[in-house]
Amino acid sequence: MGLSPTTVSRLPVYLRELELLSQAGVETISSTGLAEVVGVTPSQLRKDLSHLGSYGTRGVGYHIAGLQAQIGRELGTARGWPVVIIGVGNLGRALAGYAGFSSRGFRIAALVDPDPAVIGTVVHGVEVSDLAELEAVITRTKATIAVLATPPAAAQSVVDRVVHQGVTSILTFAATVLAVPDGVIVRKVDLGQELQILAYYEQRKSEEVVR
Amino acid sequence: MGLSPTTVSRLPVYLRELELLSQAGVETISSTGLAEVVGVTPSQLRKDLSHLGSYGTRGVGYHIAGLQAQIGRELGTARGWPVVIIGVGNLGRALAGYAGFSSRGFRIAALVDPDPAVIGTVVHGVEVSDLAELEAVITRTKATIAVLATPPAAAQSVVDRVVHQGVTSILTFAATVLAVPDGVIVRKVDLGQELQILAYYEQRKSEEVVR
Repeated sequence: MGLSPTTVSRLPVYLRELELLSQAGVETISSTGLAEVVGVTPSQLRKDLSHLGSYGTRGVGYHIAGLQAQIGRELGTARGWPVVIIGVGNLGRALAGYAGFSSRGFRIAALVDPDPAVIGTVVHGVEVSDLAELEAVITRTKATIAVLATPPAAAQSVVDRVVHQGVTSILTFAATVLAVPDGVIVRKVDLGQELQILAYYEQRKSEEVVR
Repeated sequence: MGLSPTTVSRLPVYLRELELLSQAGVETISSTGLAEVVGVTPSQLRKDLSHLGSYGTRGVGYHIAGLQAQIGRELGTARGWPVVIIGVGNLGRALAGYAGFSSRGFRIAALVDPDPAVIGTVVHGVEVSDLAELEAVITRTKATIAVLATPPAAAQSVVDRVVHQGVTSILTFAATVLAVPDGVIVRKVDLGQELQILAYYEQRKSEEVVR
Protein backbone atom coordinates (compact mmCIF):
# COMPACT_ATOMS: atom_id res chain seq x y z
CA MET A 1 0.00 0.00 0.00
CA GLY A 2 1.31 3.44 -0.88
CA LEU A 3 1.46 6.28 1.60
CA SER A 4 -0.47 9.48 0.95
CA PRO A 5 1.54 12.26 -0.74
CA THR A 6 1.32 14.44 2.36
CA THR A 7 2.68 11.65 4.57
CA VAL A 8 5.49 11.02 2.09
CA SER A 9 6.38 14.70 2.10
CA ARG A 10 6.69 14.65 5.91
CA LEU A 11 8.94 11.58 6.13
CA PRO A 12 12.13 13.45 5.16
CA VAL A 13 11.30 16.07 7.81
CA TYR A 14 10.92 13.38 10.48
CA LEU A 15 14.14 11.75 9.34
CA ARG A 16 16.04 14.98 9.51
CA GLU A 17 14.86 15.85 13.02
CA LEU A 18 15.64 12.30 14.17
CA GLU A 19 19.18 12.69 12.81
CA LEU A 20 19.64 15.92 14.73
CA LEU A 21 18.32 14.32 17.94
CA SER A 22 20.57 11.33 17.40
CA GLN A 23 23.59 13.57 16.91
CA ALA A 24 22.67 15.29 20.18
CA GLY A 25 22.82 11.90 21.94
CA VAL A 26 19.08 11.46 22.46
CA GLU A 27 17.99 7.79 22.25
CA THR A 28 14.22 7.82 22.69
CA ILE A 29 11.54 10.47 22.28
CA SER A 30 7.81 10.68 23.00
CA SER A 31 5.37 11.21 20.14
CA THR A 32 4.50 14.58 21.69
CA GLY A 33 8.16 15.60 21.82
CA LEU A 34 8.88 14.49 18.27
CA ALA A 35 5.68 16.11 16.98
CA GLU A 36 6.74 19.38 18.52
CA VAL A 37 10.21 19.49 16.93
CA VAL A 38 8.74 18.47 13.58
CA GLY A 39 5.86 20.94 13.76
CA VAL A 40 2.86 18.60 13.42
CA THR A 41 0.22 17.49 15.90
CA PRO A 42 1.00 14.36 17.98
CA SER A 43 -1.99 12.57 16.44
CA GLN A 44 -0.77 13.35 12.93
CA LEU A 45 2.68 12.05 13.83
CA ARG A 46 1.34 8.81 15.32
CA LYS A 47 -0.86 8.30 12.29
CA ASP A 48 2.01 8.86 9.84
CA LEU A 49 4.33 6.50 11.67
CA SER A 50 1.67 3.85 12.15
CA HIS A 51 1.50 3.59 8.34
CA LEU A 52 5.11 2.43 8.53
CA GLY A 53 4.17 -0.09 11.22
CA SER A 54 5.88 1.95 13.91
CA TYR A 55 3.88 2.53 17.09
CA GLY A 56 6.39 3.43 19.78
CA THR A 57 6.25 2.01 23.29
CA ARG A 58 3.99 3.37 26.00
CA GLY A 59 6.02 5.27 28.60
CA VAL A 60 9.15 5.15 26.43
CA GLY A 61 8.15 6.59 23.09
CA TYR A 62 10.00 5.92 19.88
CA HIS A 63 13.53 4.51 19.70
CA ILE A 64 15.28 7.04 17.53
CA ALA A 65 17.78 4.70 15.84
CA GLY A 66 15.08 2.20 14.96
CA LEU A 67 12.74 4.83 13.62
CA GLN A 68 15.55 6.36 11.55
CA ALA A 69 16.30 2.98 9.97
CA GLN A 70 12.63 2.38 9.24
CA ILE A 71 12.00 5.75 7.59
CA GLY A 72 15.29 5.44 5.72
CA ARG A 73 14.23 2.07 4.32
CA GLU A 74 10.88 3.51 3.29
CA LEU A 75 12.57 6.40 1.49
CA GLY A 76 15.25 4.19 -0.02
CA THR A 77 17.98 6.47 1.27
CA ALA A 78 20.60 3.74 1.56
CA ARG A 79 20.56 3.15 -2.17
CA GLY A 80 22.93 5.83 -3.44
CA TRP A 81 20.44 6.89 -6.13
CA PRO A 82 22.31 8.27 -9.15
CA VAL A 83 21.17 11.80 -9.97
CA VAL A 84 21.94 13.85 -13.06
CA ILE A 85 22.00 17.64 -12.75
CA ILE A 86 21.24 19.50 -15.97
CA GLY A 87 22.44 23.09 -16.11
CA VAL A 88 25.76 23.98 -14.51
CA GLY A 89 25.30 27.68 -13.83
CA ASN A 90 25.44 29.07 -10.31
CA LEU A 91 22.44 27.06 -9.19
CA GLY A 92 23.69 23.81 -10.73
CA ARG A 93 27.08 24.31 -9.09
CA ALA A 94 25.48 25.02 -5.74
CA LEU A 95 23.42 21.83 -6.07
CA ALA A 96 26.47 19.79 -7.13
CA GLY A 97 28.23 20.84 -3.94
CA TYR A 98 25.22 20.48 -1.68
CA ALA A 99 26.20 18.17 1.17
CA GLY A 100 22.57 17.39 1.92
CA PHE A 101 22.33 15.29 -1.24
CA SER A 102 25.06 12.78 -0.41
CA SER A 103 24.15 12.60 3.28
CA ARG A 104 20.64 11.60 2.18
CA GLY A 105 21.68 8.76 -0.08
CA PHE A 106 22.07 10.52 -3.42
CA ARG A 107 25.08 10.52 -5.68
CA ILE A 108 25.70 13.17 -8.32
CA ALA A 109 26.35 10.78 -11.22
CA ALA A 110 26.61 13.43 -13.92
CA LEU A 111 26.55 17.15 -14.62
CA VAL A 112 25.40 18.31 -18.05
CA ASP A 113 25.59 21.72 -19.74
CA PRO A 114 25.54 23.07 -23.30
CA ASP A 115 28.28 25.72 -22.77
CA PRO A 116 31.61 24.73 -24.46
CA ALA A 117 33.47 26.75 -21.80
CA VAL A 118 31.94 24.58 -19.06
CA ILE A 119 31.95 21.15 -20.75
CA GLY A 120 34.95 19.12 -19.60
CA THR A 121 35.57 21.19 -16.48
CA VAL A 122 35.39 19.39 -13.14
CA VAL A 123 32.83 20.64 -10.60
CA HIS A 124 32.89 19.09 -7.13
CA GLY A 125 34.70 16.05 -8.51
CA VAL A 126 32.40 15.45 -11.48
CA GLU A 127 33.36 16.26 -15.08
CA VAL A 128 30.72 18.26 -16.93
CA SER A 129 29.26 16.43 -19.97
CA ASP A 130 27.91 17.97 -23.15
CA LEU A 131 24.14 18.46 -23.23
CA ALA A 132 24.25 17.04 -26.77
CA GLU A 133 25.20 13.71 -25.19
CA LEU A 134 22.42 13.74 -22.58
CA GLU A 135 20.91 10.45 -23.77
CA ALA A 136 24.24 8.62 -23.54
CA VAL A 137 24.92 10.13 -20.11
CA ILE A 138 21.63 8.84 -18.73
CA THR A 139 22.17 5.39 -20.19
CA ARG A 140 25.68 5.21 -18.75
CA THR A 141 24.78 6.47 -15.26
CA LYS A 142 21.40 4.67 -15.06
CA ALA A 143 20.03 7.87 -13.48
CA THR A 144 16.27 7.82 -12.93
CA ILE A 145 16.22 11.17 -11.10
CA ALA A 146 17.03 14.39 -12.96
CA VAL A 147 17.49 17.81 -11.38
CA LEU A 148 16.75 20.72 -13.72
CA ALA A 149 18.73 23.89 -13.15
CA THR A 150 18.32 25.21 -16.69
CA PRO A 151 16.82 28.50 -17.85
CA PRO A 152 13.00 28.18 -18.09
CA ALA A 153 13.05 28.29 -21.91
CA ALA A 154 15.23 25.17 -22.10
CA ALA A 155 13.35 23.14 -19.51
CA GLN A 156 10.66 21.42 -21.58
CA SER A 157 13.00 20.14 -24.29
CA VAL A 158 15.36 18.76 -21.63
CA VAL A 159 12.42 17.10 -19.86
CA ASP A 160 11.23 15.49 -23.08
CA ARG A 161 14.70 14.05 -23.68
CA VAL A 162 15.28 12.68 -20.17
CA VAL A 163 11.79 11.19 -19.97
CA HIS A 164 12.30 9.49 -23.33
CA GLN A 165 15.47 8.03 -21.86
CA GLY A 166 13.67 6.53 -18.86
CA VAL A 167 13.93 9.22 -16.18
CA THR A 168 10.79 9.07 -14.03
CA SER A 169 11.45 11.66 -11.30
CA ILE A 170 12.27 15.29 -11.94
CA LEU A 171 13.14 18.04 -9.48
CA THR A 172 12.90 21.40 -11.22
CA PHE A 173 13.94 24.90 -10.27
CA ALA A 174 12.77 26.34 -13.58
CA ALA A 175 9.75 28.62 -13.07
CA THR A 176 7.70 27.21 -15.91
CA VAL A 177 4.99 24.64 -16.53
CA LEU A 178 6.33 21.24 -17.59
CA ALA A 179 4.32 18.63 -19.47
CA VAL A 180 5.21 15.03 -18.64
CA PRO A 181 3.52 11.69 -19.35
CA ASP A 182 1.62 9.82 -16.62
CA GLY A 183 3.93 8.01 -14.24
CA VAL A 184 6.60 10.72 -14.26
CA ILE A 185 6.73 12.71 -11.05
CA VAL A 186 7.74 16.36 -11.10
CA ARG A 187 8.48 18.36 -7.98
CA LYS A 188 8.90 22.11 -8.39
CA VAL A 189 11.02 24.18 -6.05
CA ASP A 190 9.91 27.78 -6.30
CA LEU A 191 12.10 29.97 -4.15
CA GLY A 192 9.97 33.04 -4.82
CA GLN A 193 7.00 31.33 -3.18
CA GLU A 194 8.96 30.85 0.02
CA LEU A 195 9.69 34.57 0.15
CA GLN A 196 6.04 35.38 -0.52
CA ILE A 197 5.02 33.36 2.51
CA LEU A 198 7.42 35.40 4.63
CA ALA A 199 6.10 38.61 3.06
CA TYR A 200 2.58 37.73 4.19
CA TYR A 201 3.72 37.68 7.80
CA GLU A 202 5.81 40.83 7.36
CA GLN A 203 2.80 42.63 5.93
CA ARG A 204 0.61 41.56 8.84
CA LYS A 205 3.18 42.78 11.34
CA SER A 206 3.39 46.19 9.72
CA GLU A 207 -0.41 46.44 9.65
CA GLU A 208 -0.53 45.66 13.34
CA VAL A 209 1.88 48.52 14.03
CA VAL A 210 -0.28 50.93 12.04
CA ARG A 211 -3.52 50.00 13.78
CA MET B 1 -7.94 37.68 11.48
CA GLY B 2 -4.87 35.82 10.31
CA LEU B 3 -5.02 32.97 7.83
CA SER B 4 -3.87 29.51 8.82
CA PRO B 5 -0.24 28.69 7.96
CA THR B 6 -1.34 26.06 5.43
CA THR B 7 -3.62 28.53 3.66
CA VAL B 8 -0.82 31.10 3.58
CA SER B 9 1.54 28.55 2.08
CA ARG B 10 -0.94 27.85 -0.73
CA LEU B 11 -1.55 31.49 -1.68
CA PRO B 12 1.72 31.86 -3.66
CA VAL B 13 0.84 28.66 -5.53
CA TYR B 14 -2.59 30.04 -6.46
CA LEU B 15 -1.03 33.33 -7.50
CA ARG B 16 1.52 31.63 -9.69
CA GLU B 17 -1.03 29.49 -11.51
CA LEU B 18 -3.28 32.53 -11.98
CA GLU B 19 -0.33 34.36 -13.56
CA LEU B 20 0.26 31.50 -15.98
CA LEU B 21 -3.45 31.39 -16.88
CA SER B 22 -3.50 35.15 -17.34
CA GLN B 23 -0.45 34.97 -19.62
CA ALA B 24 -2.29 32.34 -21.64
CA GLY B 25 -5.17 34.79 -22.16
CA VAL B 26 -7.65 33.08 -19.82
CA GLU B 27 -9.97 35.57 -18.06
CA THR B 28 -12.19 33.46 -15.79
CA ILE B 29 -11.89 29.99 -14.30
CA SER B 30 -14.18 27.71 -12.31
CA SER B 31 -13.19 26.67 -8.81
CA THR B 32 -12.94 23.09 -10.06
CA GLY B 33 -10.63 24.11 -12.90
CA LEU B 34 -8.40 26.23 -10.70
CA ALA B 35 -8.32 23.54 -8.01
CA GLU B 36 -7.12 21.06 -10.59
CA VAL B 37 -4.20 23.14 -11.88
CA VAL B 38 -3.19 24.00 -8.34
CA GLY B 39 -3.51 20.45 -7.09
CA VAL B 40 -5.99 20.86 -4.22
CA THR B 41 -9.63 19.80 -3.86
CA PRO B 42 -12.29 22.28 -5.06
CA SER B 43 -13.69 22.55 -1.53
CA GLN B 44 -10.23 23.37 -0.15
CA LEU B 45 -9.77 26.03 -2.81
CA ARG B 46 -13.16 27.63 -2.14
CA LYS B 47 -12.45 27.63 1.58
CA ASP B 48 -9.03 29.24 1.16
CA LEU B 49 -10.35 31.95 -1.14
CA SER B 50 -13.41 32.64 1.00
CA HIS B 51 -11.01 33.64 3.80
CA LEU B 52 -9.91 36.43 1.48
CA GLY B 53 -13.55 37.40 0.89
CA SER B 54 -13.46 35.98 -2.64
CA TYR B 55 -16.35 33.73 -3.60
CA GLY B 56 -16.45 33.68 -7.39
CA THR B 57 -19.69 33.97 -9.38
CA ARG B 58 -22.01 31.05 -10.01
CA GLY B 59 -21.77 29.94 -13.64
CA VAL B 60 -18.73 32.16 -14.27
CA GLY B 61 -16.20 31.21 -11.63
CA TYR B 62 -13.40 33.49 -10.53
CA HIS B 63 -12.22 36.53 -12.47
CA ILE B 64 -8.51 35.87 -12.78
CA ALA B 65 -7.29 39.47 -12.78
CA GLY B 66 -9.37 40.33 -9.73
CA LEU B 67 -8.27 37.27 -7.83
CA GLN B 68 -4.61 37.95 -8.68
CA ALA B 69 -4.92 41.48 -7.32
CA GLN B 70 -6.61 40.24 -4.17
CA ILE B 71 -4.05 37.55 -3.39
CA GLY B 72 -1.24 39.94 -4.29
CA ARG B 73 -2.58 42.48 -1.76
CA GLU B 74 -2.84 39.77 0.89
CA LEU B 75 0.77 38.72 0.28
CA GLY B 76 1.99 42.29 0.02
CA THR B 77 3.70 41.56 -3.28
CA ALA B 78 3.39 45.10 -4.61
CA ARG B 79 5.62 46.43 -1.89
CA GLY B 80 9.08 45.82 -3.27
CA TRP B 81 10.21 44.26 0.02
CA PRO B 82 13.96 44.82 0.48
CA VAL B 83 15.79 41.53 0.99
CA VAL B 84 19.37 40.98 2.10
CA ILE B 85 21.18 37.85 0.94
CA ILE B 86 23.96 36.68 3.23
CA GLY B 87 26.56 34.42 1.65
CA VAL B 88 27.62 35.05 -1.95
CA GLY B 89 28.84 31.61 -2.98
CA ASN B 90 27.23 29.71 -5.86
CA LEU B 91 23.89 29.53 -4.08
CA GLY B 92 23.88 33.20 -3.08
CA ARG B 93 24.75 34.16 -6.66
CA ALA B 94 22.01 31.97 -8.05
CA LEU B 95 19.52 33.59 -5.66
CA ALA B 96 20.72 37.10 -6.50
CA GLY B 97 19.98 36.42 -10.17
CA TYR B 98 16.72 34.61 -9.57
CA ALA B 99 14.05 36.33 -11.69
CA GLY B 100 11.29 34.89 -9.51
CA PHE B 101 12.24 37.24 -6.68
CA SER B 102 11.75 40.53 -8.51
CA SER B 103 8.66 39.33 -10.37
CA ARG B 104 7.09 38.57 -7.00
CA GLY B 105 7.69 41.96 -5.46
CA PHE B 106 11.09 41.51 -3.84
CA ARG B 107 14.17 43.62 -4.32
CA ILE B 108 17.68 42.39 -3.58
CA ALA B 109 18.72 45.37 -1.46
CA ALA B 110 22.12 43.98 -0.40
CA LEU B 111 24.52 41.08 -0.76
CA VAL B 112 26.88 40.32 2.12
CA ASP B 113 29.92 38.03 2.32
CA PRO B 114 33.04 37.75 4.49
CA ASP B 115 35.46 36.89 1.62
CA PRO B 116 37.78 39.84 0.75
CA ALA B 117 37.96 38.52 -2.84
CA VAL B 118 34.19 38.86 -3.16
CA ILE B 119 33.54 42.07 -1.19
CA GLY B 120 33.22 45.03 -3.55
CA THR B 121 32.47 42.94 -6.63
CA VAL B 122 29.15 43.52 -8.36
CA VAL B 123 26.77 40.56 -8.68
CA HIS B 124 23.61 41.04 -10.75
CA GLY B 125 23.89 44.79 -10.30
CA VAL B 126 24.44 44.79 -6.54
CA GLU B 127 27.82 45.47 -4.91
CA VAL B 128 28.78 42.89 -2.29
CA SER B 129 29.16 44.34 1.23
CA ASP B 130 31.47 43.13 3.99
CA LEU B 131 29.87 40.77 6.51
CA ALA B 132 31.60 42.81 9.20
CA GLU B 133 29.26 45.67 8.27
CA LEU B 134 26.08 43.57 8.34
CA GLU B 135 24.41 45.75 10.99
CA ALA B 136 24.98 48.94 8.99
CA VAL B 137 23.75 47.25 5.80
CA ILE B 138 20.47 46.26 7.43
CA THR B 139 19.94 49.71 8.89
CA ARG B 140 20.63 51.35 5.54
CA THR B 141 18.44 49.03 3.44
CA LYS B 142 15.65 48.68 6.05
CA ALA B 143 15.55 44.97 5.13
CA THR B 144 13.25 42.90 7.33
CA ILE B 145 13.72 39.72 5.32
CA ALA B 146 17.10 37.94 5.26
CA VAL B 147 18.05 35.01 3.04
CA LEU B 148 20.79 32.80 4.47
CA ALA B 149 23.07 31.11 1.96
CA THR B 150 25.97 30.67 4.36
CA PRO B 151 27.73 27.46 5.40
CA PRO B 152 25.79 25.79 8.26
CA ALA B 153 28.49 26.62 10.83
CA ALA B 154 28.10 30.35 10.21
CA ALA B 155 24.31 30.41 10.19
CA GLN B 156 23.46 30.89 13.87
CA SER B 157 25.83 33.80 14.44
CA VAL B 158 24.48 35.55 11.34
CA VAL B 159 20.91 34.94 12.50
CA ASP B 160 21.67 36.41 15.94
CA ARG B 161 23.08 39.52 14.32
CA VAL B 162 20.24 40.11 11.83
CA VAL B 163 17.56 39.47 14.44
CA HIS B 164 19.23 41.92 16.81
CA GLN B 165 19.06 44.44 13.98
CA GLY B 166 15.31 44.01 13.50
CA VAL B 167 15.01 41.30 10.83
CA THR B 168 11.88 39.27 11.54
CA SER B 169 11.71 36.86 8.59
CA ILE B 170 14.46 34.46 7.59
CA LEU B 171 14.66 32.10 4.65
CA THR B 172 17.49 29.65 5.21
CA PHE B 173 19.21 27.10 3.00
CA ALA B 174 21.64 26.10 5.75
CA ALA B 175 20.94 22.53 6.91
CA THR B 176 21.12 23.28 10.61
CA VAL B 177 18.81 24.10 13.50
CA LEU B 178 18.44 27.82 14.13
CA ALA B 179 17.36 29.36 17.43
CA VAL B 180 15.33 32.56 17.11
CA PRO B 181 13.23 34.58 19.55
CA ASP B 182 9.41 34.47 19.41
CA GLY B 183 8.00 36.58 16.62
CA VAL B 184 10.79 35.78 14.17
CA ILE B 185 9.69 33.46 11.39
CA VAL B 186 12.15 31.02 9.86
CA ARG B 187 11.43 29.04 6.71
CA LYS B 188 13.89 26.30 5.82
CA VAL B 189 14.45 25.15 2.27
CA ASP B 190 15.96 21.68 2.34
CA LEU B 191 16.74 20.54 -1.16
CA GLY B 192 17.72 17.07 0.03
CA GLN B 193 14.20 16.53 1.34
CA GLU B 194 12.75 17.19 -2.10
CA LEU B 195 14.99 14.49 -3.56
CA GLN B 196 14.02 12.08 -0.80
CA ILE B 197 10.37 12.48 -1.70
CA LEU B 198 11.21 11.56 -5.29
CA ALA B 199 13.30 8.63 -4.08
CA TYR B 200 10.29 7.23 -2.23
CA TYR B 201 8.36 6.99 -5.50
CA GLU B 202 11.37 5.61 -7.36
CA GLN B 203 11.76 2.93 -4.74
CA ARG B 204 8.12 1.94 -4.97
CA LYS B 205 8.34 1.69 -8.75
CA SER B 206 11.36 -0.60 -8.59
CA GLU B 207 9.62 -2.77 -5.98
CA GLU B 208 6.60 -3.11 -8.23
CA VAL B 209 8.87 -4.34 -11.03
CA VAL B 210 10.39 -6.95 -8.72
CA ARG B 211 7.05 -8.25 -7.47
